[in-house]
Amino acid sequence: MATPIKIAVVGAGSATFSLGLVKDLCLTPNLAGSLVHFMDIDADRLDMITKLAQRYSNELGSDLRIANTLDLRTALTDADFVINTASATSHYHQRAMRDLTDKHGYYYGRVNLGAYKNLQLMMDVAHEMEETCPDAWLIQSGNPVYEGCTLMTRETDIKVCGLCHGHYGVYNIARVLGLDVDDMSNLTWEAPGLNHNIWLTHFYYKGENVYPLLDQWIEEHGEEYWRTHVADRTHDIQMSRGTIHQYQMFGLMPIGDTPRRGGWWYHTDIETKKHWFGEPWGGPDTELARPFYVQNLEKKMAQIHQVANDPKASVVSVFGAQKTREQQVPIIDGLVNNNEGYFQVNVPNYGALPGVPDNVVVEVPALVNKKGIQPIRVEPLPEKIMYEQILPEWLDMERELLAFQTGDRTMLLWNVLESQQTQSYDQAVVVLEELLDMAGHEDMNEHYQYPENNILLDSVRRRALR
Amino acid sequence: MATPIKIAVVGAGSATFSLGLVKDLCLTPNLAGSLVHFMDIDADRLDMITKLAQRYSNELGSDLRIANTLDLRTALTDADFVINTASATSHYHQRAMRDLTDKHGYYYGRVNLGAYKNLQLMMDVAHEMEETCPDAWLIQSGNPVYEGCTLMTRETDIKVCGLCHGHYGVYNIARVLGLDVDDMSNLTWEAPGLNHNIWLTHFYYKGENVYPLLDQWIEEHGEEYWRTHVADRTHDIQMSRGTIHQYQMFGLMPIGDTPRRGGWWYHTDIETKKHWFGEPWGGPDTELARPFYVQNLEKKMAQIHQVANDPKASVVSVFGAQKTREQQVPIIDGLVNNNEGYFQVNVPNYGALPGVPDNVVVEVPALVNKKGIQPIRVEPLPEKIMYEQILPEWLDMERELLAFQTGDRTMLLWNVLESQQTQSYDQAVVVLEELLDMAGHEDMNEHYQYPENNILLDSVRRRALR
Repeated sequence: MATPIKIAVVGAGSATFSLGLVKDLCLTPNLAGSLVHFMDIDADRLDMITKLAQRYSNELGSDLRIANTLDLRTALTDADFVINTASATSHYHQRAMRDLTDKHGYYYGRVNLGAYKNLQLMMDVAHEMEETCPDAWLIQSGNPVYEGCTLMTRETDIKVCGLCHGHYGVYNIARVLGLDVDDMSNLTWEAPGLNHNIWLTHFYYKGENVYPLLDQWIEEHGEEYWRTHVADRTHDIQMSRGTIHQYQMFGLMPIGDTPRRGGWWYHTDIETKKHWFGEPWGGPDTELARPFYVQNLEKKMAQIHQVANDPKASVVSVFGAQKTREQQVPIIDGLVNNNEGYFQVNVPNYGALPGVPDNVVVEVPALVNKKGIQPIRVEPLPEKIMYEQILPEWLDMERELLAFQTGDRTMLLWNVLESQQTQSYDQAVVVLEELLDMAGHEDMNEHYQYPENNILLDSVRRRALR
Repeated sequence: MATPIKIAVVGAGSATFSLGLVKDLCLTPNLAGSLVHFMDIDADRLDMITKLAQRYSNELGSDLRIANTLDLRTALTDADFVINTASATSHYHQRAMRDLTDKHGYYYGRVNLGAYKNLQLMMDVAHEMEETCPDAWLIQSGNPVYEGCTLMTRETDIKVCGLCHGHYGVYNIARVLGLDVDDMSNLTWEAPGLNHNIWLTHFYYKGENVYPLLDQWIEEHGEEYWRTHVADRTHDIQMSRGTIHQYQMFGLMPIGDTPRRGGWWYHTDIETKKHWFGEPWGGPDTELARPFYVQNLEKKMAQIHQVANDPKASVVSVFGAQKTREQQVPIIDGLVNNNEGYFQVNVPNYGALPGVPDNVVVEVPALVNKKGIQPIRVEPLPEKIMYEQILPEWLDMERELLAFQTGDRTMLLWNVLESQQTQSYDQAVVVLEELLDMAGHEDMNEHYQYPENNILLDSVRRRALR
C-alpha cells in the first residue's frame, strides 16, 4: 500500500544530509517507489552523491528512484515535496568575513550583515515552486530558517515548514541528569519559541517534572561538571555554565542553539567563551571550534569520497541502516500516508505562540497527519522571555527583511552600530563598507544604497582627508 | 459665564511651573473663580509659592482662589483636575548616580536603572485619586510620561493625559529656516510617536511642504551652521548635526527631545557629543550642560525668592502677563468650557498610532472639547522608524514596567548589560549592586531580588575572593 511520491532536494551536495534522507526513505516502506530528484550547482559532487545514494538504495533492496539535475526547474517539476538544504555562502567565505571584522576589533565576526544571499536563494526556490509545483510542500532545512520561512510565507503562496535539530537538546539534558532516554517516550516536553530561540516550558520524565531534579543537579553537581567536563563535539553546550546561567537569568532552560545567543556578554572573547561554554572550544562559535567543525565536515566528505571511489565497498556498512533522527521523512510520511506523528516545526504563527504576530514563523510542536501540519497552540511564554528574548528577535527579523526588501543601506549601518562590540560610529561605517566591498558581495553592494546627498559618511570622509 | 473648578497641583514646589499655571488661569476668564490647591512635601517652598501666586493673582485682579497643603488627600478632595509635576529624585541625587557610574567606566551615567521612585509616586497619586476624586482628569506633567502614563492607565481607572514640551521643536526648525512663525497658524504639522520619540510626518508652511526647504538648507547651509552656531540654551539641538544625521538615518525629522536618544553612538564622550550636538555643551545631556542647567534653575529660584521676600515688588513685572505656551490650562478650558483646541497629548493608544499595542500610551495630536480628549488617528509611521525607534522603545517600556511590578533583579541586570557602554558581565553586576546600595535606594534594593540559589553572582564572588 505504498504511495510513491516525488521529492526534490535543492542543495543535494550536502552529502550527510542527502544520504541520510535516502536512508530514511529506504527504511520507510510507505514511500516505496518514490522518486528523489537531487539538484545542486556543483556537478561533480552531485554526481558522486547520486551514485552513492543509488548504491545505498540497491544494497538495501529498495526500489527508490534517484535522479539528478543542475537545473532547479527540472528538479521541481511534478514535485510533491521540495527540501531546500542549500546555502549560498561557504564556510570559507564566512571565515573571510570574520577575518575582516577581526581586523576592525570585533571578536569572532559579531557584525550582523543579514543573510542576503541565502534569502535570495530561498526566494528563488519559492518563486520557482509557484511556477512549477505550486501545491508542493517546501521543507526548509537550511538557515536562516526563521527569517527565510517568514519571508517566503509572506511573499509567496507556497506551503512552508522549516526544520532544525536544536530541540534534541532536551535529550542531552535528560542524559546528563542520568535519566533513561533510550526510550524517547519516557520524556514529555515542550519548547516553543522562534527558531534558535526556544524555551523549555514543560519537561517531564515518566510523568514527573524534571525541573526540580535539574535545580538539584545545578546545586550539587553543576560546579564540578563545569570544572571537569570536556566537550566531545563543538555544539555540546546544553548543560554548560552559560546555558544554566541563561536559565537562571530568564527563568526557563534555553534549548539547543538557543544558548549560542542569549546576550553579548557570553561572547566577548575566547576566555569568556570557555568560562561560559567549557573546554576545549568554548562552544561552537569560536576561532577554536569552527575550524575543527569544518575539518570534521571535510573528513566526512573525504570518507564519502573514499566509499564513492571504491565500488566494492558496502555503503550500508559505512553509513549504517538505522533511521536518522531527522524529521523530514516522517513528516512526509505523516502528510502522505496519514502516519500521524508529533514534530517540532517552524510555521507561520496565526496564534500558535501567543503574543507573536500572526505572520511571523514560530517554532512550535505540531500534529502531522493527512490533514496537514497542525501547530499546537501552546501556553504563552513568560512575559520576561517574551520581552527580553522573543520580541527583540522579532524586531531583528523585521528589520532584516525590511532592509532586504528596500535595499536601504542605513538599515545595515544601524545593524552594525547595534552590534555590542562596535565602539564608534566611524568604526561601523568603515567595517560595513569593507564588508560590502568584499569579493562575492558585488550584488549586495549594489542592492543596498544610502539616500542621496547625505551627511552619513561625512565624519569618515573628514578623517580620510586628514 | 465662567465655570469655577478645582485644580490640584502635586509637586507645586516647582516654582516656574506653578506660577506659569496661575498666570494662565488668571488670563483665562472662562475659569474665573476656580480653586488651585497646591501640594508639596517641602513646606517652606510651598508656602513661598502660594504667597507669590496669590500676589500675582491679586495684581492681575483675578478672583482665583489659592490654597495649599502638605497632604495629598486634602489636595485631591473634590478636584476636577489633578496636575502631577512632582519628581521623586533631585538633580543632586541624579548627579550622585552619574558620579558612581562614571567611576565604573560609563560616560554620563548611561546605565538604565528605570524610574522606580517616580513610578511609585505616580501610582500613589493615581491610587489616591481612585479613592478621592475618581472622575477627575490626571494631567501628568512630570517624567517619565511614557512609562508612567502607561502604567497608571493599565493599573487604575483614572483618566490620564500626559504632557511634554518637546513638540515645540517644530517651531525651532521653522525659525532656523527663516520662516515667519510669529503667527503659529502659518505652520501645519504632525509629529506622532511615543513621548520623547516623535517624528515629523507632516510639515507645511502656508500650505507648502517644508521638507524640500529643509533639505536645501542642509545642503547649502548645514555645514556652516554646525561650524558656527553656538547654543544659547542647553536644549538647543533641534537643528544640530546629530539631529539632521538622525533625520537622514531614519527618514523623518526627530522632534524636541527625540534626538537626545537615537543611538548610543551620538553619546559616547564629550567630544563626540560636541560633534553631533554643537558648542558649547554638546547638547543637554553632558557633564558641561547639566550643571549649567541646574545652576539656571537655581538662579531662577533665587530670583523667585527675592521677589517673595520683597512684598513691594510687582510679581507681574517679573513674570510677565503673557500666557505661557503650556497646554494644561487650554486643555482644561477645552474640556470644561468646550473651548475647542488641538493639542499634542500622551494617551492610551487604542488605534491612534497604528502598529503600537492598544494599552500603550502614545503621543499624538488630539482634538479637545466638551466631549473629551479625542486622539486623532494618524497615518502609520514608516516601517523603518517603527522597527528601529518606536517598537524597541515599546519593549524597553514593557521590560521596565514588568521589572517594576515583579521586583525581578535579573531584569535590572539585563538592562544594565544592554547599556551599550557595558564591557563585561562582571562590570554590570558590580555597578548594579553599587547603585542599589546607594543612600536613598533602600526601598529599590529591597524590592528587586535575584532568584534563590543562583550562579548569577558567582564570577564576581570568585573575583572578590582572589
